[in-house]
Amino acid sequence: MNELTSALAAALPDGRVLTDPDVTDSYARDRTFVQPGRPLGVVLAETRDDVVATMRWASEHRVPVVPRGAGTGLAGGATAVDGCVVLSLARMTAIRELSPQDEIAVVEPGVITADLDRAAREHGLMYAPDPSSYEISTIGGNLATNAGGLRCVKYGVTRDSALGLEVVLADGRVLNTGRRTMKGVAGYDLTGLFVGSEGTLGVITAATVRLRRAPREMATVAAEFTSLRDAAAAVSAIVAAGCQPSMLELMDRTTLQAIDDWKNIGLEPSTRAMLIAQAEGSADEMADLCGAASFVAVSSTPEEAAELIGVRRLAYQAKERLGQCLVEDVCVPRSVLPEMITAIEEAAARHGVLIATVAHAGDGNVHPVFVFDRGLAEPPEEVWAAADEVFRAALDLGGTLTGEHGVGLLKKRWLGLETGPVAAELHHGIKQVFDPLNILNPGKAI
Amino acid sequence: MNELTSALAAALPDGRVLTDPDVTDSYARDRTFVQPGRPLGVVLAETRDDVVATMRWASEHRVPVVPRGAGTGLAGGATAVDGCVVLSLARMTAIRELSPQDEIAVVEPGVITADLDRAAREHGLMYAPDPSSYEISTIGGNLATNAGGLRCVKYGVTRDSALGLEVVLADGRVLNTGRRTMKGVAGYDLTGLFVGSEGTLGVITAATVRLRRAPREMATVAAEFTSLRDAAAAVSAIVAAGCQPSMLELMDRTTLQAIDDWKNIGLEPSTRAMLIAQAEGSADEMADLCGAASFVAVSSTPEEAAELIGVRRLAYQAKERLGQCLVEDVCVPRSVLPEMITAIEEAAARHGVLIATVAHAGDGNVHPVFVFDRGLAEPPEEVWAAADEVFRAALDLGGTLTGEHGVGLLKKRWLGLETGPVAAELHHGIKQVFDPLNILNPGKAI
Repeated sequence: MNELTSALAAALPDGRVLTDPDVTDSYARDRTFVQPGRPLGVVLAETRDDVVATMRWASEHRVPVVPRGAGTGLAGGATAVDGCVVLSLARMTAIRELSPQDEIAVVEPGVITADLDRAAREHGLMYAPDPSSYEISTIGGNLATNAGGLRCVKYGVTRDSALGLEVVLADGRVLNTGRRTMKGVAGYDLTGLFVGSEGTLGVITAATVRLRRAPREMATVAAEFTSLRDAAAAVSAIVAAGCQPSMLELMDRTTLQAIDDWKNIGLEPSTRAMLIAQAEGSADEMADLCGAASFVAVSSTPEEAAELIGVRRLAYQAKERLGQCLVEDVCVPRSVLPEMITAIEEAAARHGVLIATVAHAGDGNVHPVFVFDRGLAEPPEEVWAAADEVFRAALDLGGTLTGEHGVGLLKKRWLGLETGPVAAELHHGIKQVFDPLNILNPGKAI
Repeated sequence: MNELTSALAAALPDGRVLTDPDVTDSYARDRTFVQPGRPLGVVLAETRDDVVATMRWASEHRVPVVPRGAGTGLAGGATAVDGCVVLSLARMTAIRELSPQDEIAVVEPGVITADLDRAAREHGLMYAPDPSSYEISTIGGNLATNAGGLRCVKYGVTRDSALGLEVVLADGRVLNTGRRTMKGVAGYDLTGLFVGSEGTLGVITAATVRLRRAPREMATVAAEFTSLRDAAAAVSAIVAAGCQPSMLELMDRTTLQAIDDWKNIGLEPSTRAMLIAQAEGSADEMADLCGAASFVAVSSTPEEAAELIGVRRLAYQAKERLGQCLVEDVCVPRSVLPEMITAIEEAAARHGVLIATVAHAGDGNVHPVFVFDRGLAEPPEEVWAAADEVFRAALDLGGTLTGEHGVGLLKKRWLGLETGPVAAELHHGIKQVFDPLNILNPGKAI
């Protein structure tokens, strides 16, 4: 330890600070290929007071702090910068309160998202936001990125479930935002501002989140199509019919092939796309609306449903077997989903890049995964060229660069295309109010 | 016109500026008793460019601007201040776009909320937020206050339906926030920040809002109870059973009496409370859950339902017949609704004040209406004393001062009790970023 980190260790209970580079380096990156800087140390916070002491020390010594959950981010948001302290919240895992009567929970940031969901289900409730990573990602990370997920087509994103926050500010002061009630309009929406701010405005040490009644009976349909356009038409039909799906997932041939190569799911040669839809009530209507499908499987038991959905949950790992992945996250109005997917296919062909696409089709959120050689430190030029085309196509179609992963480091160079210079000025003005020394996750998100 | 207003008139098309005090005074107040200041003039904006010209002029001459929709606010938020210009958005009434495919609309701020809902219903959709004023209030005002309503127990408040905004900033620059897509996390949540900011951060000139599928079949139940506690128990039972009501309204005896005195609804002497619940599906389950009710009426046709709900829609007007009204708006966790209502009854008795209460009971949002003499310019001391007790009781019960009406002027003196000094500092810091000259609705909301 040097003088700085010794002062930090002295301000914290024993064992909270790590400085061995072999250890700290493992806290320096998220799930992307982004090359991290070298941190001074890592704080393993166990309490809010640990976070307060860390931020006071950081403000005093002007040391950058990079807050971190489980490190499952896909935009480089939790990547360490040189000379920073990584502030891990992963040990703050208490569910402080769970009130079935008020349908709320108060949780610490290190709680694994699926663990909260399971705790809620013991009371007939659920925690709705379910990013694909929800078995390994934390509530804190989900709040920092305003994570989406499969169910958000019906229940909204993480911000829609966040009622109030306990936040430690850059200078170590503690702020409570929001409320325990379903509604509330006292003051500006600081809760919504912290959610999705990627650790640049404060460190969330607890959240009051909304739980919802778990649905009673779910019907699940998996349908295979010989064209992507037919699959997209089925998406529109299911939504227009008012089925209110709580899941409406699309996978392209490349993704299905990767899963089949790994797990042998018996993929037909003619299948170009698969749709997985889940809704309360009967499966028959959804199955009928997949009229152009070459094959439709319907389930009504939870076990059969888990099997159908399991295919979708394999998608990311299956792609990682093909090489390194740049996982992108554009979102477009649902009506132009076919145009977005066509643009992705054209970019892949034009630049000779392998792109495997899954989509949370019900809300137009498309994840084209650009696969590149495992030996490379970062994506080759042609991948960036194809990604650039995909981003611009999304914006041209009235969409956004990022539906749920955040900006982090990876999308910063395109952000201005979407938000423009006036928004950028306001973003930096807000940042200055909350973090005048620019020590909180500097260089990220805005 | 004086030199200032002449310069304003010269910057705008003919007929946009009013300066006759007899006319401008009618634009100076909202629906509260709050005594307004005297405006310099009123701008009747018809286009975004009118708003831009007004804000440029206001910045140049440091003139306060009070944005205004239909003036139906209940917190004094749109009250004119001395020497201000009132900027009315009521003439900006275009629905610029309504896309059934993408379930969005782009609307100008002067659109009457119920008109947008009706336009959506032509396509099997609805605009969900429905404040009690929705036949007379505007989308712009709803956005400014983050209005709630009867249906928000199921569909959320105005912020939950706001995807993106076109905003004219204090200096006249135009900012587009948010997106046309269901999800999006590019940059800080400026959309959410403007919503509920009561015209203090910018002037909304268009909004992209989310529409939802209109439910297919609605069942409506009206139940009378001989005790408030039984009614509150039915609320909890209906929610806990997973009925997912889209309306769950409670009225107390005083409110029912006022309605009965006016419209003769045949109120039984023993009735202490009435509950009106609406949900998709069958009414039988909800009726069963009102087990302790002395009388239950069930409807399944829209006409019968409208009749049952009509009683609720009469509540505010019925109370206005009793005298002047201070309409309050506390919100508590649903489980303590009986305690909140008891606290209101106790405050009424202790201070000898007539309080009639309705509640959006499903989300714990309680509107105690303090009735006072029509001859008074403002509420007498005992009303404020009772209101103070009600506010403090709400906070003690884990609630908020305002569920959906906003802070405006009326609740400013209590705001600090809820949000604390750190939040106040951040609110003012944010205000400074957006409105460094403090010309946008100064003195309101924060």
